[in-house]
Amino acid sequence: MQKTGVALLGLGVVGSGTYKIITEQREKIKNIYGVDLSVEHILEKDKTKAQALGIDLSIVSTDIQNILNNDDIKIVAEFFGGTEPAKTFLIKCLLKGKSVVTSNKELVCKYFGELEAAAAKGKAGLYFEASCVGGVPIIRTLTDAMQANDIKEIKGIINGTTNYILSKMADEGVGYAEALATAQKLGYAEADPTADTEGYDASYKLSILSSLAYNKHVPLTEIYREGINKITAEDINFGKEFGMTLKLLGISKNSDGKIEARVHPAFIDNNHPLASVKGSFNAVHLLGNNVGDIMLYGRGAGDLPTGSAIVSDIVFAAGKKTHRRFDFIKQKFNAKDFVSDFTSEYYIRMKVTDKAGTLSKISGIFGKFGVSITTVLQKPPTDNSGIVSIIFITHVTKEKSISSAIDSIGKLDGVNEISNVIRVER
Amino acid sequence: MQKTGVALLGLGVVGSGTYKIITEQREKIKNIYGVDLSVEHILEKDKTKAQALGIDLSIVSTDIQNILNNDDIKIVAEFFGGTEPAKTFLIKCLLKGKSVVTSNKELVCKYFGELEAAAAKGKAGLYFEASCVGGVPIIRTLTDAMQANDIKEIKGIINGTTNYILSKMADEGVGYAEALATAQKLGYAEADPTADTEGYDASYKLSILSSLAYNKHVPLTEIYREGINKITAEDINFGKEFGMTLKLLGISKNSDGKIEARVHPAFIDNNHPLASVKGSFNAVHLLGNNVGDIMLYGRGAGDLPTGSAIVSDIVFAAGKKTHRRFDFIKQKFNAKDFVSDFTSEYYIRMKVTDKAGTLSKISGIFGKFGVSITTVLQKPPTDNSGIVSIIFITHVTKEKSISSAIDSIGKLDGVNEISNVIRVER
Repeated sequence: MQKTGVALLGLGVVGSGTYKIITEQREKIKNIYGVDLSVEHILEKDKTKAQALGIDLSIVSTDIQNILNNDDIKIVAEFFGGTEPAKTFLIKCLLKGKSVVTSNKELVCKYFGELEAAAAKGKAGLYFEASCVGGVPIIRTLTDAMQANDIKEIKGIINGTTNYILSKMADEGVGYAEALATAQKLGYAEADPTADTEGYDASYKLSILSSLAYNKHVPLTEIYREGINKITAEDINFGKEFGMTLKLLGISKNSDGKIEARVHPAFIDNNHPLASVKGSFNAVHLLGNNVGDIMLYGRGAGDLPTGSAIVSDIVFAAGKKTHRRFDFIKQKFNAKDFVSDFTSEYYIRMKVTDKAGTLSKISGIFGKFGVSITTVLQKPPTDNSGIVSIIFITHVTKEKSISSAIDSIGKLDGVNEISNVIRVER
Repeated sequence: MQKTGVALLGLGVVGSGTYKIITEQREKIKNIYGVDLSVEHILEKDKTKAQALGIDLSIVSTDIQNILNNDDIKIVAEFFGGTEPAKTFLIKCLLKGKSVVTSNKELVCKYFGELEAAAAKGKAGLYFEASCVGGVPIIRTLTDAMQANDIKEIKGIINGTTNYILSKMADEGVGYAEALATAQKLGYAEADPTADTEGYDASYKLSILSSLAYNKHVPLTEIYREGINKITAEDINFGKEFGMTLKLLGISKNSDGKIEARVHPAFIDNNHPLASVKGSFNAVHLLGNNVGDIMLYGRGAGDLPTGSAIVSDIVFAAGKKTHRRFDFIKQKFNAKDFVSDFTSEYYIRMKVTDKAGTLSKISGIFGKFGVSITTVLQKPPTDNSGIVSIIFITHVTKEKSISSAIDSIGKLDGVNEISNVIRVER
């Protein structure tokens, strides 16, 4: 059996995990899949990482030419993260006919077109299962199991850091700052957590998943994004009283070719399959016109789950004579294909002075802007400030109507604060 | 683009669903996957079924030679069900080099070896995604996404009929007979429901999934099987008091090459991801040494979900130059590779005469056979018969120990009935 030469760009946590898996599974993969993986070169500055894995240092360097000029290397797996030098190096590899496997969601999201163009030119494959939801085969499902479906909707918990923080707030009643600090201590969140908490990471993944699901490029610029840093323990507790769980969701929909995509915190019913996805677990719910509802669930990150997806892509790529092309990426962008003013139900929490007539005035303004209310919850004051919290939950309404109503309500005499506005998804 | 000729064996519910999907999705599949599907022949006695779909009757017959002799037909999808004539026809097709796609779990389970041998000889592909869990890509996951893993365990709700019955019993408090009658009325259960309720259907699927997961043939004969017909509303209610849900589970484990496989009702903790899988939905939970826990969820049956999997396999097969071989099926059977006396926790419900000393005698016998008890629940009598129910839940123990203990307890003076024994899975 001919060896399939593999190069690794970077030997960090996931790169090292991948090397370990290739070594551990090599015989089995050879026997079952007829693919004999052999790591031929590694780009890594820090040689101690290679030494720790018992790798012969003669195959470790910092020069991409060592990979580009080695015709035995058929597949290049990238672990640098960020956009440069990953982008430049991978495009060179693709043009040389070397297939690329990556978990770099930011790179695939932002430069899908450039990468695919280079891959098509070099007749190479572009694989990125590991970029979304760790080892869960959501990309393989979209590309190789949903051929018979028009995908109508994606709804997912696609960021483990925020799901860990929100689960901790819900289970232990702690505030956002404390939950974030614990996540940072345990390594679930970075020192600068904004990529996760502000929803950037989830937006990259939603862009990739939606593009594959709808066979249309869904760029980052068309994804509404809102993070979780304004969520309080109070909101989560009120949600519980309504039988709802708060999650950071990535949602996209395709209605007759018109696409809506958004990442934001949302309440979902406790009975929804996504509500029980806790801690650092992720899950993606798909709706296909023929298959109906399906959901995939698993760990969204980690060296071995992500390495599992990387090695799966390497074996899958090695078994292909011709690689899948993502031709949709060549279509010209048309803003008309995307929905900007989407609809939702809303949870609105506000603080008002406890006196007669306030509720009536607030309700009047909601009515004026066509916002219909399904539920109101007002609790007796807990201190003698004379200020109470009121929660409203609306029927489905337009984003614009809710903003206008809230602007007016905020100016009412007796309304002290609009504390939070959170979407409710059914 | 060259057409890919497809033949359909049977035009029942799933066959018709498949035809509709091929027609509806043909253009999209051509554009995205480069595969132009064309139905060239259909075997079906009842011509009205073809007429209802607007199919030209000149391509409908009852003679398999019309398919075998047509070199344009590359892929044959089978919808007959049962083992004959499906087996004979499909083996002829495979030997002629035509790839086979089927949802026939009984056929694949019982004749995997014969089908694979014919496929290997004819250099044809054998595809059966639709045989397990409808449109949920569990087979594609096992064959094309878990290459980097040793699968350690499968745990699944893989029969929709029994899950519908058990969900109805749990949600509405009705008995087994009433829930079954409703399932039959709604078409979720057959007039003769034994294939589902006795666990045969789940065993076929567990055999297929386990064989793929462990790369070792797990024949039906090595799968312990127990149905749900002895389950009562009382058991389900007691389970609720312990925070547990009752499900018919298919479970298999691979411990260093030694395989354990079983289908039986079991209590699972309400927090387990499988506990919230309700009604006719199915789900399979996998544990891989690298990927960790993953779960796939969706509709386990139905014309369009199953048709979705059939068409996915057809497109996948059409894109392959060489097909995957299942070489493990050729290994010689060795009984030593399978576990017979497996361990579990147990729930035991019995009726005893309410008098001093009985509980002590029962506990003594459990102790004698090395069965350790975690929980005992005895409720005050609800009538004046002097007879009460007692529930015991055990620690992990061997099947043999529990049977021996229960035999002895059943003979005790004051023990009126061993009402039920149900496994508890963590």
